[in-house]
Amino acid sequence: MEWFRSIPDETHHRAFLKDVLTLVLDEAVFKANRRGEPVIRWRLPQELLSLIDVQTRDQPASHEELLAAIKATIDFSVKTGHPMFINQLYSGLDPYGLAGQWVTDALNPSSYTYEVAPVFTTMEEAVLQNMRALLGYPDGRGDGIFCPGGSLANGCAMNLARFKAFPSVKTEGLHGLPRLVLFASEDAHYSIHKMAALEGLGEAAVRSVTCDSQGRMDLKALEAEIQVAKRDGVHPFMVVATAGTTVLGALDPLSAIADVCSTHGLWLHVDAAWGGGLLFSKEHRHLLAGIERADSVAWNPHKLLAVPQQCSTLLVRHEGLLKACHGRDATYLFQKDKFYDHNLDPGDKYIQCGRRVDVFKFWLMWKGKGSLGLGKHVDAIMELSRFLIEELKKRADRFKLVLETPNFVNVSFWYLPQSIRNLDPSTQIYRNKLQSVAPKIKEGMMKAGTMMLGYQPLRQWPNFFRFVTQNSGMTKQDVIFMLDEIERLGDNL
Amino acid sequence: MEWFRSIPDETHHRAFLKDVLTLVLDEAVFKANRRGEPVIRWRLPQELLSLIDVQTRDQPASHEELLAAIKATIDFSVKTGHPMFINQLYSGLDPYGLAGQWVTDALNPSSYTYEVAPVFTTMEEAVLQNMRALLGYPDGRGDGIFCPGGSLANGCAMNLARFKAFPSVKTEGLHGLPRLVLFASEDAHYSIHKMAALEGLGEAAVRSVTCDSQGRMDLKALEAEIQVAKRDGVHPFMVVATAGTTVLGALDPLSAIADVCSTHGLWLHVDAAWGGGLLFSKEHRHLLAGIERADSVAWNPHKLLAVPQQCSTLLVRHEGLLKACHGRDATYLFQKDKFYDHNLDPGDKYIQCGRRVDVFKFWLMWKGKGSLGLGKHVDAIMELSRFLIEELKKRADRFKLVLETPNFVNVSFWYLPQSIRNLDPSTQIYRNKLQSVAPKIKEGMMKAGTMMLGYQPLRQWPNFFRFVTQNSGMTKQDVIFMLDEIERLGDNL
Repeated sequence: MEWFRSIPDETHHRAFLKDVLTLVLDEAVFKANRRGEPVIRWRLPQELLSLIDVQTRDQPASHEELLAAIKATIDFSVKTGHPMFINQLYSGLDPYGLAGQWVTDALNPSSYTYEVAPVFTTMEEAVLQNMRALLGYPDGRGDGIFCPGGSLANGCAMNLARFKAFPSVKTEGLHGLPRLVLFASEDAHYSIHKMAALEGLGEAAVRSVTCDSQGRMDLKALEAEIQVAKRDGVHPFMVVATAGTTVLGALDPLSAIADVCSTHGLWLHVDAAWGGGLLFSKEHRHLLAGIERADSVAWNPHKLLAVPQQCSTLLVRHEGLLKACHGRDATYLFQKDKFYDHNLDPGDKYIQCGRRVDVFKFWLMWKGKGSLGLGKHVDAIMELSRFLIEELKKRADRFKLVLETPNFVNVSFWYLPQSIRNLDPSTQIYRNKLQSVAPKIKEGMMKAGTMMLGYQPLRQWPNFFRFVTQNSGMTKQDVIFMLDEIERLGDNL
Repeated sequence: MEWFRSIPDETHHRAFLKDVLTLVLDEAVFKANRRGEPVIRWRLPQELLSLIDVQTRDQPASHEELLAAIKATIDFSVKTGHPMFINQLYSGLDPYGLAGQWVTDALNPSSYTYEVAPVFTTMEEAVLQNMRALLGYPDGRGDGIFCPGGSLANGCAMNLARFKAFPSVKTEGLHGLPRLVLFASEDAHYSIHKMAALEGLGEAAVRSVTCDSQGRMDLKALEAEIQVAKRDGVHPFMVVATAGTTVLGALDPLSAIADVCSTHGLWLHVDAAWGGGLLFSKEHRHLLAGIERADSVAWNPHKLLAVPQQCSTLLVRHEGLLKACHGRDATYLFQKDKFYDHNLDPGDKYIQCGRRVDVFKFWLMWKGKGSLGLGKHVDAIMELSRFLIEELKKRADRFKLVLETPNFVNVSFWYLPQSIRNLDPSTQIYRNKLQSVAPKIKEGMMKAGTMMLGYQPLRQWPNFFRFVTQNSGMTKQDVIFMLDEIERLGDNL
């Protein structure tokens, strides 16, 4: 067969694919994530360009050249499965999830109709139903979709809430409607603003509700904002509560917010993109009490449950609403004269048309670990986080917690170098110094390759580290290593 | 290590992962796509449920059970890489693309910042620039993003066009603005309506422009619709031209539409999700003449170029606009005090936050085949399509073309069973009969598992087959097999 054709050929491709898989398994799966191996081999863009020829060419590269490029790509990519990658709301490299991705890739499906994806559309329905059951929707009833990320899951929820309040918006748009507003805490994810802009509401439609000292939405502030909106003559339609804020990991008081929504006839969306996985833990699921009252929930299994990138869902209480809001009945895809029940085709519930299958990796993990295993995974992460808090308290002369008693995984803290320990914390010089500490330590750890840990400022607080992991392969020894490494890198700042 | 942890362990997982890869390579990559193997083993949902236990459980399944589930998933999934999968705007299983996916999965990246995805963010910029160069933007200048599907690529283009016309829309929304309308042909993809609804414009904001007899946007009708809009007192802001319509594969007259846009000050978006790949072909790229004048172009390499699901891009002429329109400057992610140039972080150009890496599979294909190989791939598909037209003309007593001279890959045609050949085509009985032929043949081929070929009605035309492939592994013998099989299944209808 000719070399350029888009189908694998025994003669041309089997050996190449086997070589790739050997490389991937040895280098990217096992070696890369071993303790002692670097999390990152930091290179500036110009250095990277000298190591990997990223430019495309007219002529084909040889298999040897491609294998070398793959090796370099693995070498200079960040090892997000490494226990010391504690930089984002995703990490770990789940073996079952990875296997599920590999299978999905080989089958290369798109998940709009039963006819082209019978197994995967069936699994999607089963998984979404079981997630809704965990959420506490009776018998797992309701509806749901997989989304390309939590931002768009939140965006779809906003679209549904708006459509429920004003069905005419689908055909007529916002024109002629009162000005619509929604409420989210000041620590809600920035996607709420992004989606408000995308959906024609405008960022100003998001009324920011102040947080309490723990980063949770303040109920009195919410009530006050609703009153202000009514006085302004604008039309409130939705509250976005957060179950696990991005930085502090705060869990908004869902039951109390549900009461407020009920009183004012507002749609309650819970952004549990980060916190949703807690529902698998018998010990910790009480932290999400009230979530069963939500009209919709965004939940990203690729976060706390460590499903490979990307696996996001939107779960909805109201049956039929997704299709009513998003449907367009494209006759080339959703023919009504099919020989099977066209209601099996989920495609018209979605804002996308072609859609990558994100269910199988999660399904295989869920089968491989059981709900019990996923619960243990969550418990292990929570235990690690509690251990870190204790360790930080033991080192209270050098480390300072931002919140004394975080409820979820996130632990925010400052490192105080020697030069700052005796300064008065109320002075600007102290604050300026502290603001510069985390970026410098971050630079040090990246260049050493020993770990990656994120930092950011928030409100009155200068730059602080955010510990967060989804990798239950991380150990208490790793936590101690992290703290020791921060001390090593920051002591003399 | 304990079994439930989210990290691969030598003892627990290496053998399992190797077994999975062997199964995937043998069954899903090679055997599945061989001629003679079924494209689909059709099962109704209840039958499928007896073959695969899709329900999740509390207890973990064994590795043996998981391998059996993977085997069954492969067996009962549609073989989209099979030469006889000619059902959608994606097909084939490119070996380099597949290898790229497997590598990406093992590295499990998210592509918002340079620090967590240095190689991939660098490749994204290179690939997008080279795509813009192919488009004809001078030196490949401009900007671009990867999108989760063509629908959202079109949606982002609409958002950009609106923002360019009314920058206040980002913060203030549509409130207070004149009613905005855009123009797209009646055969434009249904995502234009979906996105208009999502973005608060409403489906009615899409003014449908009639097509000429070849399914191309009619220029006089476009001018007339613009005049009607102006007379209605609404505000036109955009024309969506299509380079490769979904059903007929029509290519709108881009240069002439660009003239109209220029006259009226309208943003020109070209939905080249399907047709974009033509730009790789020296022989056929003239079909997209004028595309270099577009303000934005949606182009899905996962369609004509057979990049694995999913790889969609939006290319934009205007530098800086994506960030201005979509940016939100989240301080926890895009810190301005980073030790490297924060302009290397592409995340704020996107409407998503976390984002699966879709560049590497395409990049590896482009390296592995060169621009020349991708061009040959496109040429082979176009040649196959021309061959089919000739074959259909040879069988003109039994087959009838919907369009006599399609310009692109799509070939639309009816099969005329014996019972219909002598009926008067102007009668309702003929039309009713013809309407039922394609669904019945489709049912037959699905149940036989020999092939999958799509059908749909359009305007005055009853159900007809749409031939479309992206698999350059398909041969002329396969085309003949397809026609013979239609005759075999449909002769007695």
